[in-house]
Amino acid sequence: MRIYDRDGAPNTARIRIVLAEKGLEDRVEFVSVDLIGAEQKQSAFLAMNPIGKIPVLELEDGLLISESTAITEYLDNLDGSPILTGRTAREKAVIHMMQRRVEMLFLEPLDDYFHYGTPGLGKRLAPYRMPDWPGRHEWGKRRGAAALRGLPYFDALLRRQPFVAGQAFSMPDITLYISLLFADVAALPMAPELTALPAWRDKVAARPAVRNRSGQTILPGDLARLTA
Amino acid sequence: MRIYDRDGAPNTARIRIVLAEKGLEDRVEFVSVDLIGAEQKQSAFLAMNPIGKIPVLELEDGLLISESTAITEYLDNLDGSPILTGRTAREKAVIHMMQRRVEMLFLEPLDDYFHYGTPGLGKRLAPYRMPDWPGRHEWGKRRGAAALRGLPYFDALLRRQPFVAGQAFSMPDITLYISLLFADVAALPMAPELTALPAWRDKVAARPAVRNRSGQTILPGDLARLTA
Repeated sequence: MRIYDRDGAPNTARIRIVLAEKGLEDRVEFVSVDLIGAEQKQSAFLAMNPIGKIPVLELEDGLLISESTAITEYLDNLDGSPILTGRTAREKAVIHMMQRRVEMLFLEPLDDYFHYGTPGLGKRLAPYRMPDWPGRHEWGKRRGAAALRGLPYFDALLRRQPFVAGQAFSMPDITLYISLLFADVAALPMAPELTALPAWRDKVAARPAVRNRSGQTILPGDLARLTA
Repeated sequence: MRIYDRDGAPNTARIRIVLAEKGLEDRVEFVSVDLIGAEQKQSAFLAMNPIGKIPVLELEDGLLISESTAITEYLDNLDGSPILTGRTAREKAVIHMMQRRVEMLFLEPLDDYFHYGTPGLGKRLAPYRMPDWPGRHEWGKRRGAAALRGLPYFDALLRRQPFVAGQAFSMPDITLYISLLFADVAALPMAPELTALPAWRDKVAARPAVRNRSGQTILPGDLARLTA
């Protein structure tokens, strides 16, 4: 299998953790996409993924799978033991619900904040970010505020249960963990009164599949390297 | 099982079609949520779904599942034969990828257009729609334009294959079908040069599970009833 991504980007990190959790790292070859140079917005890449975002998984027979959740679903089902996306109807439903909550309440507004409310990944991507609309900066900042408003829900949730979807570590934990790193990098830190989230984050960070990926996941400073 | 929703709303229609496709309609009791009165934004509803949107599925034991994709996943897996969300790792991945493409390229910008670029569901919801930001209307209109820019991808796709995720009808077909009805109702019709999409839409509309839901799915005029 081949994965098109870029070291240091949030969604790259999500899939690297999935691969490590599933013991699949040796089966994948990585192809680096020049995010700063807007390679993901050019026709060759858009033919792989019309959304214009990494990562994209390419199977041996050429099938292309984009979207981090779909790639996670595929990798998790490969061995017939989907620990990250759920085994039963009930587990799958709760995991997918929580995945969307992490995305809608936190990751999506955070991503909008990063790309519209800050310089984001720089000038080469500006033409793809509503350049003709002066209101884009104000909108981006509002999205950052919305992201921060989403966090108390997860803090309260993680006071009641060990992981985002319940008793077991699963896909939405990976998404939330990486989103919090992304928020640190984007200088949008969580409020100090949220205490269950940092404790949960330390627990996730200590997992072998997460701890050993420090070179590939985003850490404060990584974004500076990405945009250098 | 119990479903909290509202006749005439797009996501209501998605789940009604899923229930019909799966032969599960008799097992569900429906509870109407006053969308016009902003019931979905009040604390009682937010305790069920912090996103503040319908539908929500409540199981016999009290478990609450929100998000149309998660509800679809649950209902589809109930009989051990997930025809709408895929049986194999590969089918599941492609279906989830296409589901996200329908959402990101069309339904989400369309929904933003409806709620910010038009009067949407009316005055009672205005306090939840960035009332302090004059730029919200311009943003909403830009989202409508973005939704229309997303349609040629699906038109080209449906020239090459009979359904959104390939050879078989599945979850993203339901989402795209209902989104197109929603776009008609929101007065954002597709460009006349798109011809594969209308042909595919006629084919979906003729399915028994879709045809027989006309009283519950949105049709031109339904929105007027919803907002009356």
